[in-house]
Amino acid sequence: MKKSKSSKPKQQFWGGRLSEAPELANVAYCAGRDVAARPMADAALVPFDIWQNRAHTAMLAKQGIITRAAAGRILRGLAEFERQFASGKLKLNPRKEDSHTNIEHFVAALVGPDASGTMHTGRSRNDQTTTVVRLCVRQLLLDFAQSLVGLIAAIQAAAAKHADVPVAGFTHYQPGSITTIGHWFAAHSQALLRDASRLVESYDRLNISPLGAAASFGTSWPIDRSLTAKYLGFASVQANTLDCVTNRWEMEADAAGAVAFAMAHLSIIAQDIIILGMPQIGILRVADRYVTGSSIMPQKRNPDFAEVTRAKSALISQLRESLFGIAKGALSGYNRDTQWTKYLVLDIFAEAQDAPAVFTGVYKTLTVSRARAEASCRRDFVDAVDAADTLAREAKVSFRQAYEVISEAVRLSEAKGHLDLEVVRTLARKAGMKNALLKIGTPSQIANAKTHEGGPAKSAVLANLKQQKSELKKFESALTQRAKSLDKARGLLAEAIRKIS
Amino acid sequence: MKKSKSSKPKQQFWGGRLSEAPELANVAYCAGRDVAARPMADAALVPFDIWQNRAHTAMLAKQGIITRAAAGRILRGLAEFERQFASGKLKLNPRKEDSHTNIEHFVAALVGPDASGTMHTGRSRNDQTTTVVRLCVRQLLLDFAQSLVGLIAAIQAAAAKHADVPVAGFTHYQPGSITTIGHWFAAHSQALLRDASRLVESYDRLNISPLGAAASFGTSWPIDRSLTAKYLGFASVQANTLDCVTNRWEMEADAAGAVAFAMAHLSIIAQDIIILGMPQIGILRVADRYVTGSSIMPQKRNPDFAEVTRAKSALISQLRESLFGIAKGALSGYNRDTQWTKYLVLDIFAEAQDAPAVFTGVYKTLTVSRARAEASCRRDFVDAVDAADTLAREAKVSFRQAYEVISEAVRLSEAKGHLDLEVVRTLARKAGMKNALLKIGTPSQIANAKTHEGGPAKSAVLANLKQQKSELKKFESALTQRAKSLDKARGLLAEAIRKIS
Amino acid sequence: MKKSKSSKPKQQFWGGRLSEAPELANVAYCAGRDVAARPMADAALVPFDIWQNRAHTAMLAKQGIITRAAAGRILRGLAEFERQFASGKLKLNPRKEDSHTNIEHFVAALVGPDASGTMHTGRSRNDQTTTVVRLCVRQLLLDFAQSLVGLIAAIQAAAAKHADVPVAGFTHYQPGSITTIGHWFAAHSQALLRDASRLVESYDRLNISPLGAAASFGTSWPIDRSLTAKYLGFASVQANTLDCVTNRWEMEADAAGAVAFAMAHLSIIAQDIIILGMPQIGILRVADRYVTGSSIMPQKRNPDFAEVTRAKSALISQLRESLFGIAKGALSGYNRDTQWTKYLVLDIFAEAQDAPAVFTGVYKTLTVSRARAEASCRRDFVDAVDAADTLAREAKVSFRQAYEVISEAVRLSEAKGHLDLEVVRTLARKAGMKNALLKIGTPSQIANAKTHEGGPAKSAVLANLKQQKSELKKFESALTQRAKSLDKARGLLAEAIRKIS
Amino acid sequence: MKKSKSSKPKQQFWGGRLSEAPELANVAYCAGRDVAARPMADAALVPFDIWQNRAHTAMLAKQGIITRAAAGRILRGLAEFERQFASGKLKLNPRKEDSHTNIEHFVAALVGPDASGTMHTGRSRNDQTTTVVRLCVRQLLLDFAQSLVGLIAAIQAAAAKHADVPVAGFTHYQPGSITTIGHWFAAHSQALLRDASRLVESYDRLNISPLGAAASFGTSWPIDRSLTAKYLGFASVQANTLDCVTNRWEMEADAAGAVAFAMAHLSIIAQDIIILGMPQIGILRVADRYVTGSSIMPQKRNPDFAEVTRAKSALISQLRESLFGIAKGALSGYNRDTQWTKYLVLDIFAEAQDAPAVFTGVYKTLTVSRARAEASCRRDFVDAVDAADTLAREAKVSFRQAYEVISEAVRLSEAKGHLDLEVVRTLARKAGMKNALLKIGTPSQIANAKTHEGGPAKSAVLANLKQQKSELKKFESALTQRAKSLDKARGLLAEAIRKIS
Repeated sequence: MKKSKSSKPKQQFWGGRLSEAPELANVAYCAGRDVAARPMADAALVPFDIWQNRAHTAMLAKQGIITRAAAGRILRGLAEFERQFASGKLKLNPRKEDSHTNIEHFVAALVGPDASGTMHTGRSRNDQTTTVVRLCVRQLLLDFAQSLVGLIAAIQAAAAKHADVPVAGFTHYQPGSITTIGHWFAAHSQALLRDASRLVESYDRLNISPLGAAASFGTSWPIDRSLTAKYLGFASVQANTLDCVTNRWEMEADAAGAVAFAMAHLSIIAQDIIILGMPQIGILRVADRYVTGSSIMPQKRNPDFAEVTRAKSALISQLRESLFGIAKGALSGYNRDTQWTKYLVLDIFAEAQDAPAVFTGVYKTLTVSRARAEASCRRDFVDAVDAADTLAREAKVSFRQAYEVISEAVRLSEAKGHLDLEVVRTLARKAGMKNALLKIGTPSQIANAKTHEGGPAKSAVLANLKQQKSELKKFESALTQRAKSLDKARGLLAEAIRKIS
Repeated sequence: MKKSKSSKPKQQFWGGRLSEAPELANVAYCAGRDVAARPMADAALVPFDIWQNRAHTAMLAKQGIITRAAAGRILRGLAEFERQFASGKLKLNPRKEDSHTNIEHFVAALVGPDASGTMHTGRSRNDQTTTVVRLCVRQLLLDFAQSLVGLIAAIQAAAAKHADVPVAGFTHYQPGSITTIGHWFAAHSQALLRDASRLVESYDRLNISPLGAAASFGTSWPIDRSLTAKYLGFASVQANTLDCVTNRWEMEADAAGAVAFAMAHLSIIAQDIIILGMPQIGILRVADRYVTGSSIMPQKRNPDFAEVTRAKSALISQLRESLFGIAKGALSGYNRDTQWTKYLVLDIFAEAQDAPAVFTGVYKTLTVSRARAEASCRRDFVDAVDAADTLAREAKVSFRQAYEVISEAVRLSEAKGHLDLEVVRTLARKAGMKNALLKIGTPSQIANAKTHEGGPAKSAVLANLKQQKSELKKFESALTQRAKSLDKARGLLAEAIRKIS
Repeated sequence: MKKSKSSKPKQQFWGGRLSEAPELANVAYCAGRDVAARPMADAALVPFDIWQNRAHTAMLAKQGIITRAAAGRILRGLAEFERQFASGKLKLNPRKEDSHTNIEHFVAALVGPDASGTMHTGRSRNDQTTTVVRLCVRQLLLDFAQSLVGLIAAIQAAAAKHADVPVAGFTHYQPGSITTIGHWFAAHSQALLRDASRLVESYDRLNISPLGAAASFGTSWPIDRSLTAKYLGFASVQANTLDCVTNRWEMEADAAGAVAFAMAHLSIIAQDIIILGMPQIGILRVADRYVTGSSIMPQKRNPDFAEVTRAKSALISQLRESLFGIAKGALSGYNRDTQWTKYLVLDIFAEAQDAPAVFTGVYKTLTVSRARAEASCRRDFVDAVDAADTLAREAKVSFRQAYEVISEAVRLSEAKGHLDLEVVRTLARKAGMKNALLKIGTPSQIANAKTHEGGPAKSAVLANLKQQKSELKKFESALTQRAKSLDKARGLLAEAIRKIS
Repeated sequence: MKKSKSSKPKQQFWGGRLSEAPELANVAYCAGRDVAARPMADAALVPFDIWQNRAHTAMLAKQGIITRAAAGRILRGLAEFERQFASGKLKLNPRKEDSHTNIEHFVAALVGPDASGTMHTGRSRNDQTTTVVRLCVRQLLLDFAQSLVGLIAAIQAAAAKHADVPVAGFTHYQPGSITTIGHWFAAHSQALLRDASRLVESYDRLNISPLGAAASFGTSWPIDRSLTAKYLGFASVQANTLDCVTNRWEMEADAAGAVAFAMAHLSIIAQDIIILGMPQIGILRVADRYVTGSSIMPQKRNPDFAEVTRAKSALISQLRESLFGIAKGALSGYNRDTQWTKYLVLDIFAEAQDAPAVFTGVYKTLTVSRARAEASCRRDFVDAVDAADTLAREAKVSFRQAYEVISEAVRLSEAKGHLDLEVVRTLARKAGMKNALLKIGTPSQIANAKTHEGGPAKSAVLANLKQQKSELKKFESALTQRAKSLDKARGLLAEAIRKIS
């Protein structure tokens, strides 16, 4: 694995025990907002607002609603705004309500209000802001999904690598029965693949253009909504304009929901890593670069990224819920309440966006202790269900009968700490079973006996991973195709602008 | 419209003013749980638990895991349980934990424990319950979606019927600009069509079989998971068994989410009906059979169904959120916490299931007052934006310049209550505009000038409805196809059982 | 401890290993709603509705609004309803909207509509239902609080008993530093005492009478609201009537909030018991009667009550949140939405009410392994912070300097598994410290050195418990006083009724 | 009312109709985070972190744990940090984890690591951060509560001013019966007074010192926790240290809950203002400085502050809920998850803090139209319940009988639009009533007949307001007393520091 960036000069009062410097991406992920401001919401939207302004202006010119000359001047103003903003020279002025007002003021000052005054024809801030947020969320969805690809691949690789390591699986936080590390990890990637499907579905559902909805009720100007949709890379027009504005929250909530599922799964993965990494269990070990120390307990190796993920998961799903809270019982048409939905969806992505990359790093550097994994299979009677199954088969009795024998045997073997085969045989004979249990397999044998589809046996895990990889490939190509179609739209618009100027 | 059932003998102390008896479906919807118990959760699951037991038993026999004879006896026991339960003769015994235990005890008593004791081979209650809940939720999703079809069609019909009624649209709860009733209603159906797409996607995502996951880690019995999947109408197997059990909540949350969106949209439709139906506005009038009176204010016509829907929407999305709350930070493998997710998802459907039918009835019997709708367009300056647009076009000035003139004119016309054209012309001339605004259209003319895709003009509304109807048809056929494939699975299983017995 | 009821005939397919029969209270707590219906909401309200009807009737008679004769007949009707309902002979009729309508219909049938027709004078169902729910919630709060007293006392007893057992405390799910079991448990009781304070505050805030608010706007009848308040045991009148009806949700949300905090604390206690009870840690052992087995894994001892509590905690706080969701943006005055708040608050108590008693039983029967607790202090370097503190004191260096030495020593001692004192001394000398660390105390010594207020030392724990007990006593007497004042009110009303009849 | 600051140069593209410039406080409230960054969380905490550092250092010196000389140097470093930070010269360095690390690094650089290295003796970042956040939240609670005082007083004044204006009250969003504007407003202030009680209770519950809890398990240094508590203005010590750290979220959630109730009430007030201010109703008119316009609809007067409040209310209660989500199922002892609770509680106050002041301004400048309020009483049969009451009294029949007559009369009067007395009399006579309804009062007479405690009559409203004012006074003095005790603590600490230096 290639060396990732890590912080050099020690800025923290902990970690003397650790042999690697902290991974910077993880430090940022865990630092939260202690010493990091959350930028003004519209700063993130500026590039999309410019895109939207260009598309609208080009369409107005094409439809003859404004003159080509006015359009040319507006486009020049937009290009200059873009240049100055990108360079950091220009900042949004907080005295001017929002990015829309900032941009129009700037263009007015640069190319004259007679031109800039036509920018807003056949449009309102209501559809404008909905469009811009949607363009932004669409990109964030795409980025998040692409980052998730990397994580799924990393988990699949880890699962394949440890496909033959037997380990005690838990139910109720208690050792349950024997599985493999590969099986465990493959459960994670299988779940994340469904998250991927939700992300793509959400992408496609929101990828329709609200531009042209105006205040909520359309306009009498002869606008061409299909054209702006094409320039903006939308697959189609979200027709009814009242729906566009009223249900702006819905698209955001849909995207947020897709992310919330992924984060909920990551919170489960996080807890798995925390529990399997407790020194008392010690099956997994997170690399030094992904743990933190304590300002007073020098021995600590804390899996902060995992804890932070639990918190983020709780927060993100509640923020998503707030979107529903804001929407509940709204009157159709624009309401100012929905301005807050913009912050929520941006906050959700701000909290979530680095998670897949951090987990990718964790998985790539995670150590599995085969010794302790195997040892976990030799205690706490985790082979009891397999013993019952074997007994039922050998003695040709019903599972319930075998279960009763093994239950009693567990009780009588408690002092020994593992199933006493002699006890089993005696009990089985007493219960009239002829071919009593002669032998219980090794942990590996037990795990590898569960060969059915989706089972823990190495063969089953590898078969499952093969299928998972083909799903991942489909997902990747779906993302690539969507990214390309955005590029194509940008090209079309650039071409249209060239023709105007 | 055919007469629907309505309660005859008056059981309530209100409604003297009303000329129709209350619609019973609506009474039930609004009554909530005041005088209605919520049945034991597993009662709803029994039919699905029997289905699951049959599929598992048939597979065990086919795989030679249990004998054909034992299978035959078990199947006889299941059939008898089904018969007695359906007839109401048999109730679930609360002393026996759950439906699974009730059924197995019943079968044991009827056909002997040697046979019944083999039912549970290669299975655990963990995968059993996950499977059964999923079968049930799948059906509930299908039913809800089919009910939604009816509602969407009813709204589309109402939209078409009133496509040419001009009305003041609101933004910020304040008259904004002119639209049509048809446009307004079509916004509702357009939004619900997206809900339909979510329902189908959710259906497909959960339509994979967890049966065979056992406690979480599969089994050493040579089970055939594809076969049980086929018998149960699942499209495929949810492979990794640990994922099956750990993420049981996810399938429920996904379905719940699809319902939550629909209910949120209904809560918005509810508020629209409430506001447009206030006597001070009086544009919509809910039929007498869908309103309630007061025990002390004899004049009341209360839109309870709409208020109840707001409450249900708030509750349903929070119940959905609870599913995430329960899942957060869970350790992989079965945890008892997830038992509660079953109640939540069943509660969500219990609250939501009648909503589409009630709204269908409301829409079919709703009266629109064209007079009051038109009157709403002649006050509160709702034609101001159209005046500005027209002025900009006629005077060939920028929209911003026209806007400034009309703003000032509104201020000066405040006493009159509507835009004084003389004032506009004076101001326009003063601002150097030559062709000042000569005329503002009638409400209908204004509405019908907004002809672009998704606009309020009658033509645009009808075009949009045509497109919506084709989408609805696609949705309907997707549902029909899924319903048929369930029937087919039942047929296959029945055939397999016939062969065993 | 006296033997509690436990289920005799085995109704479940698990538990062969367990030596005690399941505790029935716990079985009910964990069973949830699988095979238990949730009764109609108004069934729970009937006793309170009768109380309210009596108080209102007595007041109407006293004020001369209705005749003494009519009042007498109504009161006779109410008594008969009460008798028949209590005996189970009478059930609420679902055809009659709610308990109010059921009762009035019953009274009308029994004593004639001329008398019953005056019952509702100066009252509406809006204030009636608010009053009745409040009476019910008040009682539920009192019961829950009284049950919490028992739990706190049980925890305090367990803390005192194990005040001197040293154990490794966790931070980040990783062994952190040494504390005592007594300290750990006392943290639980200290938190629950704050919950107690919230319950009492909530009780007092809601203990004001909304009766007389009528539909929302009072009445022109000369009612005496103070008198009905007195009859109903309310501390005073909730004056403004519009507030009474609009903010009905608030009182419920306030009570729900107090319960939600308690349940959140129980969910933390639950996780502590789960983690400390994992076989790999084995410090706590839940008694057999409070664990469950598995239908297929015969060795299981699952702490279901704890898992169920986590789920309930998640659900209860979301149900509470729904109350806010329903209230958000409501228009003042009665709205039907609030009917749902009744279900939510009743559901919250239904889920929570048995939790304190179950935890009381668990605490009373919990086993602590001193051996494993002490062993947990001898690994994972949990004495490192104490070593650093000691080194700083002995060598008279700053804590930071000592911390650096110990950090390095931990790293170099990793293979040994515990802090190598020789290594520490060498490092300390190298760092120029003279009196290097000569000795680290035993776990008990380390724990007992933390003697400051609230610390883990036995002395500090016992001092803290003494203070806690006096707080608990105050809480108990606050509850007793409130319970008595309810009895007094019932007495007053009974006396008034005697005078009328 | 004195002129408040309002934005002079027009920075927005709307509002041509408005005669006042926007109120800047309201602009900021509604602007949200569009063009405003949310600062790093720890920036708000710095003053409290310095306070905490001083208290801890002074205590360490007093206890002889560190030397007076070292303490003096540390205190000098803290003073310099404070000076530079306050002047804006010093910013927190994002490379240094948090404010604690920033401060200790600064002190080390300024006065040497040998002194700064002793600052952290007997303390961990876990108790440090808990303490600092609690100091901050305590101040925020106090500020919010003090701001609420102003709002309650403003509402009480408005209620008194309009105590005699009759108006139709709503139930179910439908005109219900007659009340007064004074009664309506007084409902708002009555509810907010309960919020005030919650704020004070929450203040007192959290005003206990967690400092000295160290990592979670106290320390072996002979610290004096009572002394630091005194220096920090805490009423007492939160004894058990594990509770201090584990339940940090609880104090934040408690404060957040108190705010959430207030915001929920404001969301209801907001909806009242929105509905009564709709032009179709027109009873309330928000002053121009508190409304916004539209970028395209020149006539708009949008009550954005009210809409924004609805959204904030939804968000704030969900953020509060996130605190429970994060806490659920946590293991006792510090977990990194809780770092996120800091952001949530700060976000809650950031969203809420300006709300009371904005509503105070709105109430002070709100116009009530007596004409339209009275007109609302003469339509929609809002006098029907009073007619029934009067009829029952005059004809000496039961309320139910009178109700039936009036119900029928409403139905027959529908065309007239108001209750036809002739019809009533005919129906009453037909029903055998002798003294049929001779007269219905004017709206004022009807309102003023409802004189019981908390009723809408002017006399009752004024009596209620008198009582409310005395409650407000009690609340104010509780706040003043708490503010003073903070000042006193600062004085004590300053004195102790003087003695050291």
